[in-house]
Parts: sequence; structure tokens; C-alpha cells
Amino acid sequence: MSKRELHPTMSHPSETICSMCRLFYVNKWVLGTGGGIGIKQDHFAYISPSGIEKELMEPEQIIKYDIQTDTYESGAGGLKPSACTPLFLELFKALGASCVIHTHSINAVLCSAIYENEFNITDVEQIKAMPKGDGTNLRNVDTLRIPIIDNAPEEQDLMPALEKMTKEYPNACAVLVKRHGLFVWGPTPKKAKIYIESIDYLLEVALKLRQLGI
Amino acid sequence: MSKRELHPTMSHPSETICSMCRLFYVNKWVLGTGGGIGIKQDHFAYISPSGIEKELMEPEQIIKYDIQTDTYESGAGGLKPSACTPLFLELFKALGASCVIHTHSINAVLCSAIYENEFNITDVEQIKAMPKGDGTNLRNVDTLRIPIIDNAPEEQDLMPALEKMTKEYPNACAVLVKRHGLFVWGPTPKKAKIYIESIDYLLEVALKLRQLGI
Amino acid sequence: MSKRELHPTMSHPSETICSMCRLFYVNKWVLGTGGGIGIKQDHFAYISPSGIEKELMEPEQIIKYDIQTDTYESGAGGLKPSACTPLFLELFKALGASCVIHTHSINAVLCSAIYENEFNITDVEQIKAMPKGDGTNLRNVDTLRIPIIDNAPEEQDLMPALEKMTKEYPNACAVLVKRHGLFVWGPTPKKAKIYIESIDYLLEVALKLRQLGI
Amino acid sequence: MSKRELHPTMSHPSETICSMCRLFYVNKWVLGTGGGIGIKQDHFAYISPSGIEKELMEPEQIIKYDIQTDTYESGAGGLKPSACTPLFLELFKALGASCVIHTHSINAVLCSAIYENEFNITDVEQIKAMPKGDGTNLRNVDTLRIPIIDNAPEEQDLMPALEKMTKEYPNACAVLVKRHGLFVWGPTPKKAKIYIESIDYLLEVALKLRQLGI
Repeated sequence: MSKRELHPTMSHPSETICSMCRLFYVNKWVLGTGGGIGIKQDHFAYISPSGIEKELMEPEQIIKYDIQTDTYESGAGGLKPSACTPLFLELFKALGASCVIHTHSINAVLCSAIYENEFNITDVEQIKAMPKGDGTNLRNVDTLRIPIIDNAPEEQDLMPALEKMTKEYPNACAVLVKRHGLFVWGPTPKKAKIYIESIDYLLEVALKLRQLGI
Repeated sequence: MSKRELHPTMSHPSETICSMCRLFYVNKWVLGTGGGIGIKQDHFAYISPSGIEKELMEPEQIIKYDIQTDTYESGAGGLKPSACTPLFLELFKALGASCVIHTHSINAVLCSAIYENEFNITDVEQIKAMPKGDGTNLRNVDTLRIPIIDNAPEEQDLMPALEKMTKEYPNACAVLVKRHGLFVWGPTPKKAKIYIESIDYLLEVALKLRQLGI
Repeated sequence: MSKRELHPTMSHPSETICSMCRLFYVNKWVLGTGGGIGIKQDHFAYISPSGIEKELMEPEQIIKYDIQTDTYESGAGGLKPSACTPLFLELFKALGASCVIHTHSINAVLCSAIYENEFNITDVEQIKAMPKGDGTNLRNVDTLRIPIIDNAPEEQDLMPALEKMTKEYPNACAVLVKRHGLFVWGPTPKKAKIYIESIDYLLEVALKLRQLGI
Repeated sequence: MSKRELHPTMSHPSETICSMCRLFYVNKWVLGTGGGIGIKQDHFAYISPSGIEKELMEPEQIIKYDIQTDTYESGAGGLKPSACTPLFLELFKALGASCVIHTHSINAVLCSAIYENEFNITDVEQIKAMPKGDGTNLRNVDTLRIPIIDNAPEEQDLMPALEKMTKEYPNACAVLVKRHGLFVWGPTPKKAKIYIESIDYLLEVALKLRQLGI
């Protein structure tokens, strides 16, 4: 990978989306067209297209969505925006996020099936990478809480639960969807990448501690 | 990898087979010459050769099989077509597939040993990537069913069970072979790749849910 | 990767730190800005910066710390040295290390949670890669002992426990921090890399033997 | 990797050893200087050096050992041959191998700890990749048997057990060493690579079937 590719957060949003997706494909987070990324810049949202292998996307395939007029330019070849688009827009609006990453990570699917309404974990160093919501980060003795919402047949049907969640957890930077996957967001693509890597790590730690009987 | 390699489904069938195999080798799906791929184009079938390390194959080693005359041109160096060839041809003919992928994935071997005659899973989002058989995809609340057939000493001895399966499951896009591996097919190489990635993910989810006692 | 990148131990300390971090990122040892590396050369310590994705660091971002004057030059963009800096300096001074690697490896987090005050393992061949402390290596029938210290809210609060450890285990080349991660050191970057790879392998062997009931 | 690197078995033995080691490092088979490879060509044995990170080796570091005179040329920088050299030479002589691969694979360490004197497995398709010893391969209903010998403090102390093994299992192509690792050999580097990939896969299948209670 070129230096530009290695620094996804220094590039145009369409390039950032493509290079992050290639990276996340290796983690098996966005297999078989699953998952997606949205990045807000000014009044535009750049959104991965629907039905495309995420590791093969090219910047010209990314959808440019005009938030003010609620219209979009199709990606190369007439591609339509991800079914997650309403969820991305809600998270931009309600929580001030500028980047939302959605994966089908197996760790997320398993934790969403084990925990009831909320995943929580405390006393692991990596928690310090996570935001408290007031501009500072959590301490390693704090508890990271990630709400879990029920899955729905269509992505847009998750909207009511998501809107409820944004009110109950105004400082959340992630939500698990039952037996579906994970949405993580942040004020920049760099922050969102740090958060999702840290959360997936913490989900894996929780699962493995459980399997070891701790 | 060049852009051409990253877009295996845009290339000549022989190149598609080679780049997919390199990708699947990393997943440990086609180790030690195991596994194979067949792609139908017009009345030709392009088929990976027998006895060759799958991650090292070159396009000139791929066998060009003439379906009308039932003859083939050897691959470079006199290579013979995969022992799976009759199975690939049957799936092209009976189910209209244009690409068949065969792996020895460990997830497939384990699930074939645990489940009796059929692997099935429901209520996982990734199921939406799988075809229903009528041109639409399954919903996440539908049940994905993959028939399991017994293994046989030689690949061609799987034919009777495979023919029986194609009648009982006319909408299937995959079959597990007990303690052997997985065959997955689709109308295009792109679709077959999406299906096999999604199925292997779902097999892994099923195994891990089971280990967690869910 | 170029030959220079593949030989991290032949390069300038800043390059060594960057190429090791890229390598360790693939192992999921330094995700989401976690972890860090310090290398001592003459009276300078080269230290990875705080708050930067470890796999994306460039040599000009590495902090050059003057051990004699206790001052440092900021990395490009005004970066500050890792919060681990006092720990790195203590290990350079008290134990004569020239390279310290700190990871958040999940194997380390799990073993630190299972074992009480010390991780130990014997009768595994890879133990022969580990130093005895007298210039020779352990035998495979010797016991590798790695002390475990309690975690603390801030990295510098680990100092008293670390200083106590260096007195109780003067031949140690590693310490586990409870539910936090692993520090490993050696007389050269090459040795530190060999030690951390061997230790993480041995932690994984211990965990897997335990899960198999052995 | 260049095409030459991707075809390790088409190159000079020293290049084959280096490219295989880079490949096996990714599998965590040869971490922290562990493991090694020997290739026989005419009356010379090409052998990986001792104490070198296996993924960083260069062809000029490989030892050229003259089997007729029992002498060798040091590798670049005065490197000495692997401590496994007597074992490699014995397997060349007693069993007619031309390539021996030695890894510290965790699957091998775990299976060597679980099974008593012999690892065996039957009824898995990948067994068909393994040699029967008469020029043909095993059938998938045959049983693959891999003897297990006790570990010893020094590699050369494994010689008596290895010599005994070659008499009791004249058709073996592999031996497990308790809590140490795996030696696999074949008539060519290509065959040895196919065998070791298939064996490690079968060891993993056995471990996972056991964990699933099958």
C-alpha cells in the first residue's frame, strides 16, 4: 500500500472509505458486501454503495449525498447508497458524528446474542481509548457501556430504536444490533477507526474471558 | 495486488480462478492442493488443474473444457482437470450455475460433522446476502438451509448424491460434503464469491454460538 | 515491504520502531493507538508518540528523548512521547535494556487475569529462545517466569510496582500488567522482537492447553 | 511477492528455504528464530542457519553442507547451521527425503500433548493429500498415523528416538516431538510443503472436533 493508502484519514472521504474497507475486509468485518461506512464533510455525506464487495470499491463508486437537499449522485455504474444511509444520517444529526462505520464482525454478533440490552466491560486498559462524551476519555476503571438494540427486517426499520438509543445514551459512540453487527462513530474518521478497533478488541476480550470461566 | 487482481470478477475466467484461489488460500480454504474452482462461459468450462498448489496457479495452467464435445485442452505442462470436474459440470447443467467454488474450509468440515443431513441457521443479518432462488435474497428472519451429503472415496462417486440433492433442493446454492468441505455456486463469479464468504461466516457464527452454549 | 523494512533491526531506531509497529499491528498487539516501543542508543531514547495509530507512524513522528538532560524534541506535528516513557527509561536504567516493546496482546490480558502474581511455563521447546539472565538461554526443561503487577489508572503509577519487580526479578525480560498487557525488553531490538514473539506464543500455548484441560 | 517468490519450488534451494520461511512465519510456525528447513540437492544439504529470524533470512545466509565430507561453508556473517542439522541428514539418509521442514506450530504442540505415542486421524478428505509410502496417496478412509517422540534438552539428543522411529514407521512423512513441534519431509520441496500444510490442517481439525465433543 502507498503511504496515502496507509493514512486513510489524510485523504478525500471517498478514498478513506475505500482504504478502511480494504483494511476491515482482512478482519472479516465486511465480507460478502456486508457492512459500510459514511463520512460527513460540510453538508455532504460520502456513503459506500449497496451490493458491492467492500474490499474492491473504488473512490468513484462512493455515493455523494447532499444532506441539505436530501438528494444524491449515483456512484459509477449507477450504484445506490447503502441501506444504512438513514442510520448514518441520524447519527450525523443527533450525535454530531462525522464518520460512522458499520461491520458484521463475528465478535459483535456473538456479544449481541449473549448480553441482553447492553454490553459492558470494565477494568481493561484498552477502555482508555474510548471517549467519555465530554471531550476526555474513559479511565481503565470506568465501565464502557454499549447499548444493544433489536434487529429488524430492513435497515431503515432500525430507526425508531436508534433514535430512542441516541436519547438514552447521548454519549454513546457505538451500538450493537442483535445478531447483526456493530455501528461505531466518531468526530473524525481517525477517531472512528480507533474506536472500532478498540471496541472489537474489547468484545473479543469479553468473549474469551467468558470462555475461560472468568 | 494490481487493480486487475483486486477485481477478479472483471477478468478472463482463468485469471479470476487464479486470483480467487490466492485470496482463498489466505483463508486456509484451499491448502495443500485442496479445493478448486470452475467457471462456465459460453460452452466452455474453465477448471483449476489437479495436483497443483492453488495459490501458485497461473492462468495458462487452467484447463479449458469444451462442454459440447466433452473434451479438454491440458493446462501448461500437461495438467489434468480437477477431480471435481464432473461435479462442476453437473452443477452448471442441473442448476444453471456459472461459477462453482470448492473449499476444504475447516468451518465446513466441522459443521458437516455436527449437523446430520442439513445445516440451517436463522436470525443472523448476513443471511440477507444469500439467494432465495427466485431472484430475490433471503430475509434475515428466513432460514438458510444447506444440504449435507455423505463423502465418498473418489470425487466422481459424489455424483449420485449430488444429483439427488439438486432435485430435493432446486434453490440451493451450496452443499456440504461430510468431513470433506463445501461446494458453493452462483450465476456469476462475483455472486459465488459473495455466497461463499457469507456461508463460511455463517458456519463460523453457528460453531461459535454453539461453543458459547447458545 | 522493501528489504530495509524486512530488516527492522538494521535500520535507524525511528525506522525500527515504525516497521515493528506495522508488523505488530497485524498481530492485533497495538490496535487503536495502544502499545508502544522505546529504543535506547547512546544517551538518547527513541520513543513512539502518544495518541497515534501505531501502524501509520512515520520515522519523523518518533520522539528523540535526551536521557542526560531529561528533555525531548517533539515529533513532527508537536507529538508528545508515549505515556510509557518513564517505564521505558526505568527498564533501560535498572535492567540495562536497550529496547522495550509494550503491547496490549489479548493473550497477555487473558493470562494476566488467570495467573495470580506470576505466569510460569515449563517443558515447551520455545522456552529455549528466552534468556536466563547470565548471557545463556533457558533450557526447554527450565521454567520461564514472568512477574505480574497490578494495573494502575495512569501509566506512570505503574512505576513503584515496576521498580519493585526489577529488584525481585533482576533477570526478567518481561512483565505482565493485569488486564492491561505486556512489557518485554532486550539488549537489542532484534532480541526484544525474538523475546516478545516467543512469549506471546508461550502465553497462547498455556491458554490453549488450559482450554483442552491439560 | 514476485512470481519467483510465489513459486518457491522452482528456485535455488537457498531461495526456496527463504521464501517458504517467510510464508510459514505468517502461519506462526517459525516465530522468534524457531523452526528450520533443510533441502538436499546432489550431495549437498542447504540448511537454514541457527539464531536468525526465519522471516528475514536471505539466500546468502543459508548454509551449504557437504554431505560427503561432513563439512560446511558458513552462511554470510559466519552463521552456523541449524541445531536440527543431524536430524535433517538422518531423514535424508534413512528415508530418502530431499526436503525437511521443522516448525513449532501450536497445533503440533497441542496434539503432541494430547496424544500418547501416535497422532492418528481418519475420514477427512484432506488425508488424500498424504502419501501412503508406495508412491500412491492415502484414501480418505485410510488412517494417517504420525508417530510422537519425546522431546530432549538438545536437538541432537532426539537422534536415537528419530532413528527408532524411521525403522518402526518406514513410510512416515512426519514426526511430532512432544511439546516441541513437527518435522515433515518429502521427495521434493513442493511435496514437503503440501504435506506440512495438510498435516497442520488435520491437526487443527482434530483439536477442534475434540473441543466440540466429537
